[in-house]
Amino acid sequence: MTLHAQRAKASLSSAMADNLAKQIEEGVLAAGTRLPSIREYAAASGCSKNTVISAFEMLTASGLIEPRRGSGFYVARRVKVATEVEEARSLDRAMDTVWLMREQLQTNPDVLNLGEGFPPIEWLEETRLDQYHQRVVRTGVASLFRYGSRFGYLPLRQSLQQKLAGYEIEAPPSQIVLTHGANQAMDLVLRYFVKPGDTVLVDDPGYYPLFGRLKLSGAHIVGVPREVDGPNVAALERCLVEHRPRLFFTQSVGHNPTATDTSAAKAHRILQLAEAHDLVIVENDALADLRPRSLTRISTLDQLRRTIYIGSFSKSVSAALRVGFLACNTALASDLADVKMLVHVSSSEYCERTVDAIVSDGHFLRHTNHLQEKLRRATDAAVNALRKLGADIFKVSDQSLYLWASLPGWPDSMPLAKALLERGVILAPGAVFSPGADTVSGFCRFNVAYLTDKRFVSALQALAP
Amino acid sequence: MTLHAQRAKASLSSAMADNLAKQIEEGVLAAGTRLPSIREYAAASGCSKNTVISAFEMLTASGLIEPRRGSGFYVARRVKVATEVEEARSLDRAMDTVWLMREQLQTNPDVLNLGEGFPPIEWLEETRLDQYHQRVVRTGVASLFRYGSRFGYLPLRQSLQQKLAGYEIEAPPSQIVLTHGANQAMDLVLRYFVKPGDTVLVDDPGYYPLFGRLKLSGAHIVGVPREVDGPNVAALERCLVEHRPRLFFTQSVGHNPTATDTSAAKAHRILQLAEAHDLVIVENDALADLRPRSLTRISTLDQLRRTIYIGSFSKSVSAALRVGFLACNTALASDLADVKMLVHVSSSEYCERTVDAIVSDGHFLRHTNHLQEKLRRATDAAVNALRKLGADIFKVSDQSLYLWASLPGWPDSMPLAKALLERGVILAPGAVFSPGADTVSGFCRFNVAYLTDKRFVSALQALAP
Repeated sequence: MTLHAQRAKASLSSAMADNLAKQIEEGVLAAGTRLPSIREYAAASGCSKNTVISAFEMLTASGLIEPRRGSGFYVARRVKVATEVEEARSLDRAMDTVWLMREQLQTNPDVLNLGEGFPPIEWLEETRLDQYHQRVVRTGVASLFRYGSRFGYLPLRQSLQQKLAGYEIEAPPSQIVLTHGANQAMDLVLRYFVKPGDTVLVDDPGYYPLFGRLKLSGAHIVGVPREVDGPNVAALERCLVEHRPRLFFTQSVGHNPTATDTSAAKAHRILQLAEAHDLVIVENDALADLRPRSLTRISTLDQLRRTIYIGSFSKSVSAALRVGFLACNTALASDLADVKMLVHVSSSEYCERTVDAIVSDGHFLRHTNHLQEKLRRATDAAVNALRKLGADIFKVSDQSLYLWASLPGWPDSMPLAKALLERGVILAPGAVFSPGADTVSGFCRFNVAYLTDKRFVSALQALAP
Repeated sequence: MTLHAQRAKASLSSAMADNLAKQIEEGVLAAGTRLPSIREYAAASGCSKNTVISAFEMLTASGLIEPRRGSGFYVARRVKVATEVEEARSLDRAMDTVWLMREQLQTNPDVLNLGEGFPPIEWLEETRLDQYHQRVVRTGVASLFRYGSRFGYLPLRQSLQQKLAGYEIEAPPSQIVLTHGANQAMDLVLRYFVKPGDTVLVDDPGYYPLFGRLKLSGAHIVGVPREVDGPNVAALERCLVEHRPRLFFTQSVGHNPTATDTSAAKAHRILQLAEAHDLVIVENDALADLRPRSLTRISTLDQLRRTIYIGSFSKSVSAALRVGFLACNTALASDLADVKMLVHVSSSEYCERTVDAIVSDGHFLRHTNHLQEKLRRATDAAVNALRKLGADIFKVSDQSLYLWASLPGWPDSMPLAKALLERGVILAPGAVFSPGADTVSGFCRFNVAYLTDKRFVSALQALAP
């Protein structure tokens, strides 16, 4: 079948699935109803049996219908999913790291979350997670039960060796440790290097959950100002002289929250400083799959001599699987694998096998290409929406999950965030992304996927005097 | 169908599956061979189609055959699973926490691991993990992609409320936090309560991975001697007066490594002391599913006022899913959920939904009953094997994954462990289970499932002068 024909078939199946889903949701097809057989359905609709099979598979995956052995497909009894409302979204609660992280983990369709840190689920669903299960089982049933190796599932580390080679970072599996998400990777590094009172450098603004984690470790956090082409190198040098930090956590590609990339020249200069001041650089590359592959990483220049590279599958495969990794020199990798083992015994080989089945599938490259296309379109629309509002965009990216922007008339985004929260719109105010306790910032981090939602403009207009 | 008939059918399917598996493994049925249809197979074997279907399902689950849509079952092309040999099992390496944990995570069929901490996979395989996947998908496809709540998947917390009620511990879902295994639960508690230099009490001997984790946190570790009916209460009192510790980590049921249970009287006395000295008790109940339900927990007497209860699914469902939990008072549960969120964002809702599908299934109770039956038989055989060797067994349990015993002529089990390691038998020497750095112990922890393996006796005899 040609690629064109495949796509046509896929869209036919989707349309059929959508149509059936609508009938089920509206109650036209009641729970327990037996669907016509695939053959009958194909005859009635004039489509091929394969098209019907695909549509039924989609509906099965979304839980709307279920196969019963030897007797066809039935409309599923909908599982009533229990939910709970956490603490009320209190307006009085400090809008801090914990507040924003809690907001990220809630799902409430009535609230527009512009501060959301995650891509829309619809962008990821193309990866049919449900279809990989048999393949996972086939790689060994014992692995479904036992602890994994302290480094993590070897074939996935071999896949990652290939992935890193694509960034021109050479790292055999012995230099790669799989973790419970990128966040555990950062945590392992922290626990290995940082004692209470030690100074740690971070991007300012930067990845806010890291700040909470650093505070928990008793670290002294110092921010290095972020510019449109990466960290302010002069400021970095002053920090190195003054504070003699051991670690610098930075994000070179698709920086969260500013959407900036570190230039190759700055990466080189940062490494020179690191060398002179015996600094270890922890390069968080969690958004790698959402940016073009060819961008410069500090780790590419350094080849993991004094860099620790951290990656994630949360933003391109699934956050629910909690699979991330780190890459560094061999001796350090073995030590960090031991720390991981002491803390958690092992990561989930079940999840690691699932991720490996997905990323080593031929479809995965197509999936990330589609994801990037969607992201480009959404970024474009989001930039336009912000411009219409007269916003000041820190860096106009052509493709970034986030935009960092301030709205006219709001030199401090904190009162704006509070006012919008009352109207069912969540913003991620800039101050949360700064390690300083009393930072005032007019900027907010916007998720590009939701910026064109009309509720945002309406809520903003309602605030105008 | 009667239970008897069901069992008969199950064993018929198993026999058929075993027979086919043998033919596949011996190459009689080559990879890619199409199997006869279910109907043909039933006719030829004189069994029912359902029996054949079950057998084919078992073979599919173990990766030996694979269905191809519309065309029947084929002998699978065996996936060559990559393995790697870590560092050689060096005899020079200190037999410490890290050594023993690393040994636990390796699988080498040529080595007899009497120090293994895990039940045999065959005891768990009855839970057909592969069959729960569709049910997990049906509870919501979005959950396959997104982060979970900071407390963890609510329905599983509701199931746990029931489970804890079975131990007469009352804990609504707001008092339960799901974690990445019981070990993360312990780690969260540590990070919340313990600063470097703080004293923490532990069972001596006790759960050794905890000691490594405590050292990592810079805690001062003090052991409370373990007796056949629980901790030595007089020693506990002296420690409380002398060290003013904040936490006492203890295991009341099926204690690892001694196979002892804390008596109700001691549990009461420990709580009185905790009250008087403002001590928080962390009760690790990771082996709960392997012991009778009616045993006394300290948490049952205290109702989670100054106890933190920690549980696991690793030993009865699957360690690969990495799902554990803690239960404590409401305010502390919310704080610990925040710590978890800061460190790891969330646990894997994908794995949590899988565990929930399994434990809320009617088969689960039967599975744990079977597991306990197997354990009783294995314990009985292991006690006999140790007695034949003239071993001194600390506590003769009727049902315990571990036995704590010393062998005659070896007042220090460390040289014994080293000598046996050279002969392909891994022991878990007693000193590893003690927080003291220079403990000498004649005891070893034996996994009851492997004690009757002839390689142990042969290796021992080879050592005799």
